[in-house]
Parts: sequence; C-alpha cells; structure tokens
Amino acid sequence: MGDIKQVAVLGSTGSIGRQTLEIISAQPQRFGIIGLAAGKNLDLLTRQISQFKPRFVYSQDKKARLANAECKLLSLEEMASHPEVDIVVIATSGKWGLQSTLAALRAGKRLALANKESLVMAGEIIIAEARRNRAEILPVDSEHSAIWQCLEGEHEKPARIILTASGGPFYNYSLAQLDKVTIEQALKHPSWRMGKKVTIDSATLMNKGLEVIEAHWLFDIPFDSISILVHPQSIIHSMVEFSDGSVKAQLGCPDMRLPIQYALSYPERLPNPELPKLDWKTIKELSFAPPDPDRFPCLKLAIEAGRRGGTYPAVLCGADEVAVELFLSGRIKFTDIARLVEQTLEGHKVIPHPTLEEILAADNRARERVTQLASGEHQ
Amino acid sequence: MGDIKQVAVLGSTGSIGRQTLEIISAQPQRFGIIGLAAGKNLDLLTRQISQFKPRFVYSQDKKARLANAECKLLSLEEMASHPEVDIVVIATSGKWGLQSTLAALRAGKRLALANKESLVMAGEIIIAEARRNRAEILPVDSEHSAIWQCLEGEHEKPARIILTASGGPFYNYSLAQLDKVTIEQALKHPSWRMGKKVTIDSATLMNKGLEVIEAHWLFDIPFDSISILVHPQSIIHSMVEFSDGSVKAQLGCPDMRLPIQYALSYPERLPNPELPKLDWKTIKELSFAPPDPDRFPCLKLAIEAGRRGGTYPAVLCGADEVAVELFLSGRIKFTDIARLVEQTLEGHKVIPHPTLEEILAADNRARERVTQLASGEHQ
Repeated sequence: MGDIKQVAVLGSTGSIGRQTLEIISAQPQRFGIIGLAAGKNLDLLTRQISQFKPRFVYSQDKKARLANAECKLLSLEEMASHPEVDIVVIATSGKWGLQSTLAALRAGKRLALANKESLVMAGEIIIAEARRNRAEILPVDSEHSAIWQCLEGEHEKPARIILTASGGPFYNYSLAQLDKVTIEQALKHPSWRMGKKVTIDSATLMNKGLEVIEAHWLFDIPFDSISILVHPQSIIHSMVEFSDGSVKAQLGCPDMRLPIQYALSYPERLPNPELPKLDWKTIKELSFAPPDPDRFPCLKLAIEAGRRGGTYPAVLCGADEVAVELFLSGRIKFTDIARLVEQTLEGHKVIPHPTLEEILAADNRARERVTQLASGEHQ
Repeated sequence: MGDIKQVAVLGSTGSIGRQTLEIISAQPQRFGIIGLAAGKNLDLLTRQISQFKPRFVYSQDKKARLANAECKLLSLEEMASHPEVDIVVIATSGKWGLQSTLAALRAGKRLALANKESLVMAGEIIIAEARRNRAEILPVDSEHSAIWQCLEGEHEKPARIILTASGGPFYNYSLAQLDKVTIEQALKHPSWRMGKKVTIDSATLMNKGLEVIEAHWLFDIPFDSISILVHPQSIIHSMVEFSDGSVKAQLGCPDMRLPIQYALSYPERLPNPELPKLDWKTIKELSFAPPDPDRFPCLKLAIEAGRRGGTYPAVLCGADEVAVELFLSGRIKFTDIARLVEQTLEGHKVIPHPTLEEILAADNRARERVTQLASGEHQ
C-alpha cells in the first residue's frame, strides 16, 4: 500500500474534478483520494464523499450533511499543504485556485494544475515559489501537457511552441454572425467536454490567449516564440519546434482524462483501457489554418496583456470572468465580451511585479469596472 | 579541438553520404571527416578527398589518383573500427554495409546507420553485437529517427509504432496502370531526394516493408505492434503510441539532413540555418490512408519475410536488389519486381538463426535465382 499516492482534488465537482475521480477510480492500486474540495454543488460533493470516503473535506457551503461524514473539514490551503497529501489537483475555476496553488507549492507538493487563471494572474509569483521549494507543476491542460510530453528527454529549451486551437464553434463565422451568437450556440463546443466558463472562453479564443500566457510561464518561453495554429479536429494537442528544425507533436483523442492521468502518473504512463485510442482508420485528414485576431479580438487582448505583464493579466482574467457571466445570464452580446475586456484593460494603471494582494485588488477592480460598464450601457 | 567528433563516412559518394558531408561542413566546430569510403564513383571521391582531406580512404576502385592524396588506404572494416574514429556513418547501399557495421559495433563505435539492408538481413546478429559491446546504433532513416526522437525520455516501450509512408509516386495507380510504369516515372519520388535503389523500393513499397523489419530490430517491437499509414505529404515522419493512448509524432520537412545531423549530434540538437523549417502558413492539411497490400505486394512479402525470420529477410533483400536492377536496365516490368521476389521466397529453404555466412549465402542464391527466373522468362 506504500506506493499509493494520496491525491487531494480541489474542485472535485467540476468537469476536470469529476474526470480526475474517474481516473483515480480506474487506478486504485496507484492512487487514493485523501481530500475533496468543492464550491456550491453540495449534492454531488456529498455523493463523492460517500463513494471515496476522503479524510479531508472542504466545501464553500458548510451544511450539516458534511458533518455527518467521518471526515475532517479543512480550509483549501490546509488541504493543499497537508503532510499526508502527495499530489494536489487544482481543478477549481478562476482565481479560487490561486491561494491553494501557492500553499501546495510552499509545502513542496506535486501540483497537477488545471486552473489556468492562477498562472495567468500570478505566474511570476507561482513560478518563483515552485523554484524555491523545488515543487513540480504538472500541467493538466491538454495543450500544455502535450508540450510537456514533447519536451521530455530533450536537452534544450524549444525554439518555438505551437499551441493548437480547435477554433471553437464559430471559427467560420463573420463578424456580423458573431454579433448574433446565442448562449446555447456558444455552449456547444465541437470537440471537448468542459465547464461553461472555459467553453465560452474557447468560443471567443480568450482561452487560447490565456494558454499562451500559461505556456510562457510554465516553459519559460518568450511570447515571440509561441505561435497559435487553428486545428479544428483537436487531434494534435500542441507541438514543439527545436533548434534543428525538428518538430514533435503529441496527439490523442480529445479527452481530458489522458492529460489528467499523465500528470498523476508522471514520469510513468499507465495502461488504461477506459482511455480512448486514436483510430487511424477513421482519421482521413488533419487540417490547419492561421488564427484570425480581427474576428477573435480576445486572443490579441490576452497576448498583449501577457506581454505587458504586471497586473494586466489579472485585469484580463477578472474582466473576462465577469463578462462571460454577463453573457451567460443573457445581459450582454457575445461580441461584448471582448469589448468590455478591452475597455477595462485600457483604463487600467499597471503595477509591475505586483504582490499577491495587488494582483487580487486589480482583479477586483476589473470585475467592478466590467459590471459598471455593462450596466451603464443598459440604463 | 578535443570536442570535435571524428566521423568516417562509408558510402560518401551516395545520396546520404553527400548529405552527411554537407552537415559536417556546416558544423566544423563539432565534426571532422577522418575517413571516406566509396564504391565506383572515383571522380566524386577524388573531389571529396581534396575538399575534406581525410586521413583514411577506401575505394572499390584503387586507381593511382588516390595514392597521390596524402591519406592512408584502409579496408572498410579497418576504417569502421579504427581507434581514432568516433562515429561511423554507414551510408553504403545493399549488403555492403554489413561487414563494416559489425566491425564498427565490435569496436564499440557510435554507428549512424543509413543502410537498412544490414539490419534487415542480419538484425539478430547486429543487435546482439551492439548489446555485447554497448555500442549505439542511431538510425538515419527519417522514419526510425522519428520513432527514436519520440521515444527519448520515455520510460517504457511503445505500445505501437506507426510508420508513415508517402505511398510513392504510384499510390493511386490501378494494377493495370502499375503494369505499364516506366523507369523514368518510377525514379520521380514525390517528396524525397534519394538514391535510385531506394526510390524504386519506395515506389513498390518494398522500402516500407524493409523499414518494418528494421523497426522490429531497432526498437525490439513485435511485428503485430507495427502499423503502416500512408501519409502523402511526408511531414509526419512516424509516430509512437504509448500504453496510455498518448501518441507522439515527429515532424519536419522531407530532408534527410535533419535525421543525419541528429544521429551525429545526439543527445544534443544543433541549430543549423541550412536545415529547412516547417512553414505552418503553407501547410493546410495532412492526410492519411491505409496501405493497399494488394496493389503493392512487396509490402506484404517483406513483412511476412520479417515475421518468418531466419534467412528469409536476406533472400528478400538479395532478390529485391537484383529485381530492381533488372527493372532499371529495362529488362523486366515494374510489377515483375514483386513477382520475382515472391517466387524466390517461395523456393527458399529457411535456416533459422543463421550465421553471417549462411545469410550471405542465402542472399547469393536469391540473386542467382532471380537472374535465372528473369532470363528463363525472356528466352
């Protein structure tokens, strides 16, 4: 039993959290669940607690039902840094991953990071903390997992990273069509099963922009050496070009369970019959196209915020999160998301090399500003 | 100067040999030419000797002009095993690479192996010799270099190897069209610049069959775990599937100089502005199709010879080489190549786990048999 790695899943009721539990259930000889943490989905968390019997639990909603379970209530930071935890999976969305990410790194844990906002907002602080404590950050995003797999065994930094993008459901839409996109259309992603926020971010290409910033921090690569390539089939998850011109790509079915399992099992790979395999009898072609930043301005906004650095990426994240919520509640149009984010970024006075407090304050002000801008327009 | 690796190029006047010299010329701070060996192209060898001033020379044709040069004449085996040689590039064609391959391995050299016939004919003996002497065999074939690059840093054997094949110039031809193929048509390969023998082998898909056998020996993979995928653009050079379903691919422009340089510089990669880079602005799609063994029976014959083992692969190689020569001299049709090879294999009495002498004898008998079969038919 000594070889079983104890995993704490922060954000266990979300899409990545649930898929992490599927992987762990399929590999009981390798992984155990020691902690579960969730936001507001108390029903599902209660069911997960009965199934996995974790020792530690956190819930935003501290109802009596949890007290009935034979488990200890901890804060997110306590769980992420608890001595009996081997691997911390950060599958919370938005900035809620930030404090627990830092707590896990300070405790030197292996971190399987699915929350991109934390790296985008506070990449400098997170990477410094990981280095200081020799903690591993293993990406769970399919693109970054692909890059990481392609870099394994290589002795040099890549000359270029090529992030692939499905292009989302509206890749062939005109600006006029984009203006009329409905919530239902935007929530239908052509290839991935994901949460609502990231599905909308994929449709605006904001998600790809956030991934560029994430790749910059994870792999210590300048923005000029990161390219984006639209690849609608989502089979090639990303590529790396080396100094000799050789390119490596990682391919697989669009299924988040593969990068989740790899982050848990690294450096090993585990056979798992439940994971789908590519079937080359049915794959006739893989196609590629350049991204169009004019129709998808979020991509440009994100990369520019990343380049400028400081508090800009936090403003980007905060503004985007509120704008996406406003769209999902029917209060703004799809194309308003980019416009509101842009206006918020334009009004921001940047703080270079900010502290965590300054980052969170910038995020808060950006959220307020978007709400203001949106309501001002609707009065 | 101590870090300059001294390279002996066996087969320096052929296509791979010339491209090896291009790479070495571009990296003078890393590699020097200590030996050159060639067959009958004395003019080019003489020019190469004046340019690179090697200490050792071998030529099949020992003319006076070579004696004028200030270099020592050695046999192929002497050159391949000379203490001052660091890397031996085996770029000879056919079975001529066999003895020098073994000599280099016995001397524990790093072997950059472009000659596939030696591994196909005597894979068991070569791999045993490499293990015994802890000598490295680094593949120069683009497909095997791709697989090797994809395996770097991985901790397990691949679950599957997927060798890509351009399909050659006739991939869409009917059997009736294949029957009328001319020498000129067969020598026009759509994507690679290569020697005549391998260009014809690519057109019959015999080359891909030989590569399956080569992959079996190089990577210790059962034949059932090696697939072939037709990929006309020759951008993905091969792929590896792991136990978790993840697939890695290596991509690049169809240019042999990249795998040549990687075999020389491994485990490092060297920047080389002369090597072309993939331009994703121009790559619109990569397409895939299953191979058709009915129209390209050489593929089936080769894999079957590989599975049966013993002296069968030597018979395959010997028969194919003579059949290709007969085709190139206009004496048989394109479709006769497979038929003559098949008839020769059918008449062969296999020797399991053969010695080198038995392998060479089987090869010789196969050559005689093809000549006999072909001339009998034309009387």
